Amino acid sequence: LIAEIIAVGSEMLTPHRQDTNSLYLTAGLNDLGVSVAFKTIVGDNRKHLADAIRIAIHRADIVILSGGLGPTEDDLTRECLAEVLDRKLHRDPNTLESLALRFAARKMAMPPNNLRQADVIAGADLLPNANGSAPGQYIDTVVTSPDGQAFRKVIILLPGPPKELMPLFDNECKPRLSAALPPHFMARRLLRMALIPESTVDARCAPIYSKFTDVETTILAGHAEIQLHFLCSKPTQEAAEARVDALADLIAHEMGDDIFSAEGESLEEVVLLMLGLRDQTLAVAESCTGGWLGERITAVPNASRVFLGGAIVYSDASKETFADVSPELIATHGAVSDRVARKLAEGIRERTGSTIGISITGIAGPAIITGPDAGKPVGLVYIGLADGEDTQVRQLQIAGDRERVRLWSTQHALEMLRQHLQ
Amino acid sequence: LIAEIIAVGSEMLTPHRQDTNSLYLTAGLNDLGVSVAFKTIVGDNRKHLADAIRIAIHRADIVILSGGLGPTEDDLTRECLAEVLDRKLHRDPNTLESLALRFAARKMAMPPNNLRQADVIAGADLLPNANGSAPGQYIDTVVTSPDGQAFRKVIILLPGPPKELMPLFDNECKPRLSAALPPHFMARRLLRMALIPESTVDARCAPIYSKFTDVETTILAGHAEIQLHFLCSKPTQEAAEARVDALADLIAHEMGDDIFSAEGESLEEVVLLMLGLRDQTLAVAESCTGGWLGERITAVPNASRVFLGGAIVYSDASKETFADVSPELIATHGAVSDRVARKLAEGIRERTGSTIGISITGIAGPAIITGPDAGKPVGLVYIGLADGEDTQVRQLQIAGDRERVRLWSTQHALEMLRQHLQ
Repeated sequence: LIAEIIAVGSEMLTPHRQDTNSLYLTAGLNDLGVSVAFKTIVGDNRKHLADAIRIAIHRADIVILSGGLGPTEDDLTRECLAEVLDRKLHRDPNTLESLALRFAARKMAMPPNNLRQADVIAGADLLPNANGSAPGQYIDTVVTSPDGQAFRKVIILLPGPPKELMPLFDNECKPRLSAALPPHFMARRLLRMALIPESTVDARCAPIYSKFTDVETTILAGHAEIQLHFLCSKPTQEAAEARVDALADLIAHEMGDDIFSAEGESLEEVVLLMLGLRDQTLAVAESCTGGWLGERITAVPNASRVFLGGAIVYSDASKETFADVSPELIATHGAVSDRVARKLAEGIRERTGSTIGISITGIAGPAIITGPDAGKPVGLVYIGLADGEDTQVRQLQIAGDRERVRLWSTQHALEMLRQHLQ
Repeated sequence: LIAEIIAVGSEMLTPHRQDTNSLYLTAGLNDLGVSVAFKTIVGDNRKHLADAIRIAIHRADIVILSGGLGPTEDDLTRECLAEVLDRKLHRDPNTLESLALRFAARKMAMPPNNLRQADVIAGADLLPNANGSAPGQYIDTVVTSPDGQAFRKVIILLPGPPKELMPLFDNECKPRLSAALPPHFMARRLLRMALIPESTVDARCAPIYSKFTDVETTILAGHAEIQLHFLCSKPTQEAAEARVDALADLIAHEMGDDIFSAEGESLEEVVLLMLGLRDQTLAVAESCTGGWLGERITAVPNASRVFLGGAIVYSDASKETFADVSPELIATHGAVSDRVARKLAEGIRERTGSTIGISITGIAGPAIITGPDAGKPVGLVYIGLADGEDTQVRQLQIAGDRERVRLWSTQHALEMLRQHLQ
């Protein structure tokens, strides 16, 4: 069984906006054992949209349309589908009433255009939308091809806003699709690794995962990490779980400590969990990353249990003010140096009373042309880690632009901390 | 003239990965006066891909295919297009030679599969790819419809990796397309506003922009800002510029100080520029945002000219350590309070010697259940701004999840600073 997802809206044919609903819908369809074979993006144009719908119904078993259910004259999905199926639209009295209530609750007069949102294609199930004014529609039908063959087709209309589309798909469409499809059990696993090149991961893991022909393996690279996604479908849940677990265990054995998460948690979450288990606390002193490491750590709810805070030591003077790095040390070695990284980590640890202090100092770009750091290469970064007994410093040369140097610096700092805690 | 973009690759039909090349290609096509009417995403499947190509050639004047030019058996774009056009593939000797050189330079043996990357569709222009092994192909041809009508079609094959696709499109395709299309002049303008609701912007601006029927206006909302994009095409560059400028001026007059950028700069860039012009410096004390404000400011190259740094005052103790906020003040009013925001802004300013100190303290979620902040609502945020003469504090109630509360807090802080500097 294959599906096609059609995203309707001219704004998604500009350079500025993308269809994202289809990613969510694809995950849900995959859960039901359905693959997405085509995605189409089409504008608010009656002929283009009707043609796209006609093609989709011809080539896919399940067609999901998102968008174009609003009240304006540009919203044409209902009309186009009715035209393609050669069915009538009727105005649903219950939907009309709930539209009237929505406007009354806001003390607004309902523009006549909004009445169109109550138009339902003959034979469609109405899917009530608690989060917006346009209901979804679900059509389970049989179409006949020109040569007289009959094919069962499911066609679904969903509103475009993700907050409306997602619950409608989960609560109204998935149960209907699930009842219509053969029973189906899926298992997923996710392994995450930091800093390691995608080609290295693939070279080491391909000989293993390629033997699991019944498990779909996807390698994703981005944001200074590699993710290995495993997906398996079997007649029972136990059988599916057993296969992804068997593969994940072999890969985990091959990649060892490079894997920071075998259950999907982020690197920040793992590090905070490890600190919590050891009753340790953390403080940071960030120069070139300007607060990004702190931002990442505090994106995790309840980070305050182990994260005390720290300093954004951007100027030379602030390195003394907040972490007791002397101006002489900076004058001698430069702010981007092993010695300053070391002193920053120790200084922030002492100032805050944390168990561990981490520092980042580097050249994110452009190059520094005066002072003691002049001539050091863009991408040179030092990470310091002090725990009161010992201070380690790692020197890195990170490739790429300012954003990449900064992101990878925070990733190296978190990974260094994870390895220290292990 | 309309275009269709086909992204080829099964990975873009998973929940994990999206076609992004089409945004870049769309911007380039728009520059040439060509609208994108359809985007299709199709997997590495011979029948599906050939059907998608057939449909695209039928309904669009320009068809751009990205991806599927690699050396593996899954890479089918060349073969499928040759099949649809009923043309032969021939192996290009120059491409073969450069493939051999690429492998020799890496001291690797070339697998026989790679020879396929030298296959060229009869009649195609080869587009040499300096950044990868698969050249692009450009076909300018006439196809005849079943009823005997002839249509000119341009069909372009580009490799999928953005670093290969972008220069090939810019350097090889745009000049060819430009020569084939009527002369064309485009002007663009971008106005940016922070914190204001999209519906408010639209209600106030629609009466203005709707009169400029020759200017395409796009309103984008996201990341705590609203962008108004204007695009106009005219027979001369001057005429196009004059129209977008006329519209932008009227909108700027209507929205006044809400517009932080009339030339496209980010809010961070605007604030740093204003500080630099006034010879002022800035320091920050961040509690719930954990360094995000500092991160945003230091994402701008050369932020060090005016940004000194500051502190991540996540724990109560760190508020005293780095900004002299007394434990008594926190015990009395809570860390999330007007008084603490005020003292943090003043304290960080004094400690760093900056002209201006900014503070953020708030509840990003989950709710605080013990201590003096217990019972305060999630989303309650105070922003402090101290300049040595006066300290202002703004109390906010920000809706949404942890990430949204934190992002909007940084945006409010930047916008408060911008208004202060104005």
